[in-house]
Amino acid sequence: MSQPKYLTGNKADIEEFLSRFDVFLFDCDGVLWSGDHLFPKVPETIEMLRSKGKQLVFVTNNSTKSRADYKKKFDKLGVPASVNEVFGSSYSAAVYIARILKLPAPKNKVFVLGESGIEQELDAEGVPYIGGTDPAFRRDMEPDDFTNLANGSALDPDVGIVLSGLDFHVNYLKMATAFQYLQRGAVFLATNTDSTLPMAHSLFPGAGSVGAGLVKAMGREAVALGKPSQAMMDAVEGKFQFDRSRTCMVGDRLNTDIQFGIEGKLGGTLAVLTGVSKKEEFLSEGAPTVPMAYVDALGDLVD
Amino acid sequence: MSQPKYLTGNKADIEEFLSRFDVFLFDCDGVLWSGDHLFPKVPETIEMLRSKGKQLVFVTNNSTKSRADYKKKFDKLGVPASVNEVFGSSYSAAVYIARILKLPAPKNKVFVLGESGIEQELDAEGVPYIGGTDPAFRRDMEPDDFTNLANGSALDPDVGIVLSGLDFHVNYLKMATAFQYLQRGAVFLATNTDSTLPMAHSLFPGAGSVGAGLVKAMGREAVALGKPSQAMMDAVEGKFQFDRSRTCMVGDRLNTDIQFGIEGKLGGTLAVLTGVSKKEEFLSEGAPTVPMAYVDALGDLVD
Repeated sequence: MSQPKYLTGNKADIEEFLSRFDVFLFDCDGVLWSGDHLFPKVPETIEMLRSKGKQLVFVTNNSTKSRADYKKKFDKLGVPASVNEVFGSSYSAAVYIARILKLPAPKNKVFVLGESGIEQELDAEGVPYIGGTDPAFRRDMEPDDFTNLANGSALDPDVGIVLSGLDFHVNYLKMATAFQYLQRGAVFLATNTDSTLPMAHSLFPGAGSVGAGLVKAMGREAVALGKPSQAMMDAVEGKFQFDRSRTCMVGDRLNTDIQFGIEGKLGGTLAVLTGVSKKEEFLSEGAPTVPMAYVDALGDLVD
Repeated sequence: MSQPKYLTGNKADIEEFLSRFDVFLFDCDGVLWSGDHLFPKVPETIEMLRSKGKQLVFVTNNSTKSRADYKKKFDKLGVPASVNEVFGSSYSAAVYIARILKLPAPKNKVFVLGESGIEQELDAEGVPYIGGTDPAFRRDMEPDDFTNLANGSALDPDVGIVLSGLDFHVNYLKMATAFQYLQRGAVFLATNTDSTLPMAHSLFPGAGSVGAGLVKAMGREAVALGKPSQAMMDAVEGKFQFDRSRTCMVGDRLNTDIQFGIEGKLGGTLAVLTGVSKKEEFLSEGAPTVPMAYVDALGDLVD
C-alpha cells in the first residue's frame, strides 16, 4: 500500500487534494472538537470548503443526541452547520428501519435500549417504539418479571426490532426484556458498537459496551448502523445521493472513520492527528488501515 | 476418542465405574434438580455414594448465592449436604483472591459488580470490598460522576481488583466505576462467564452477559473463577486436597462441566441427560467434548 501524503504546510498539495472531491464526510469528536474544546481554525476551514462549493456531511456515531441536539452543539461552539448536514447513528438507524428494513406494520415496533436521541429520530421517521426513556423500565427486576417475561405476558407482541445504543440508564430489566424479544426472533440492530466513550479526558463505556451483554447472551453481533458499518454509508448515500468517487471521509480513528471510507470505496480518506489514532499506526510497515492523506489538524487546510 | 459408556440399567458397569473414584464433583442445576424441581432418586443416590465412603463436592457457577444460601436450597429440596461440601463460583473467587492472588494490603480491596452471595464469601475469607449491594451505587450516573471518576476523586485508591458476577442491579454508574479501576490497572476477575441464566423455563442474561460490557470496554476477558476455568479446579483442589486420578466430575453441560473435568485431568467424567446437553452432541463423529460415561438421569446409579 502506498504511503499517505502529509499535507500540513504544503499549500499546492492541499489545493490538489481538495480539488478531487465534491463531498466531504466529517467525523466530529477528535476532528472538529474534543468534548467542548473547539480546535483552532475549524470554522474557517468549514467556511473555506463551503466557499469552494463542497457539500459537507457530519457523520457521528454518538447515539444519545438527535440531529437537532447536535445542531445545538455546532451553534454553541461556533461551527456553521445545518440540521440536514448532520447524520448521527440514531438517525442512521431510524432511516435503516423505515426505508430499508421496512417490516410490515404493526410488527415493526422497536424496543429501544438507549436515550432520547434515538427516540427523536424514530419519531422523525414515523417508527413506533417502546422502552427507551420510559420510566416504567427504570426500576429493579422483580421475581414476577422473570415469570411474566418468560411467558410473554409482559411483552408487546408487535415488537419486531431491538435497537441497542448508548443507554446511561441500562439495567437488568431492560437487558432481560430486550433478550426476550431477541429470543422470539426480533431483528437485532445497534446504533453503533464503539466500545468506549471519551468524556472528561478519560474513557467510559460506549454503546458497544452497553450492548455487549445482549451480544454475549445471543451469541451473535447486532447489525450496526454506525461507522464503520456500511449500512450507515448506504443510509448516508440514500439521503445525499453523492458520487462516492468524488467523496472524502475525514476522521481521527483509523478503525472506524478511515475504515468506513475505505470499505465504502470513497475517492479518498483524510486522517487528522487531533484525536485517537497516531501517525505511527498508519506509517508503520503492514499497517492494516492507511488513509490517502493526513494533516496534523483540520485547521491546517487553511493558511 | 473412545465412545462413552452408557451405564443406565447396567448394574455391573455402574459398580465398576463407581469403584474407580473416591471423590465426586457434582454440578447442581440440571443434575440434582431443575429450578425447584428435584429429580427422582437424587437423595437416594447421594446417600448410596456416601455409604460407599465417597467424598462429595457440589460445584456451582451460580454467583448470586453464598454457600450458606445454597445449603438452604439443599435442605428445602431434601438433598443431604453440608455447607462445606458446597463450592460456588463466589466462594471460588474469594478463595482465589485470598489464598492464590494474595495482593499486599491495603491495595487488595475488591470492587464488586454483583449480589450479596459474593459479599458473603469475601467476608468469609476476610477480603475487603466496596460496591456490590451498597445503595450508594444504585443510582443514575450524573454529569459530575464523569468528572469525578475521570480525575479519580470518586475512586478508592486501595481497589486493586474488579470482581464481576451476576448483578441484577447493574447500571451505568457501576460499569463506569469498574471500568475506571480496570483502566488504572486493577486485576480483572469474574465469578463465572455463563452467557445465560435459566429461569422460569426461559433464558435470561447470565453473569457473562452482565460483565460483557467491561470485557468489551477493556478489549480483553476476565480471569474466570467458575467452570470450566481451571482456576476454579485449583481452588477446589486447594481446599479438598483430592487425588485427581480418583476424582469424577458429574454434570449436564459438555462445554462447562465435562470440559472442566477433562481439562482438569480428572480420572473420569459422567454426563447426565437431564439438563442442557443431549447425547447426540457427544455420540456424533468428531464431537469436541466426550464424557467417559453417561446415564439418562443421576438416579439411574441406584436401583
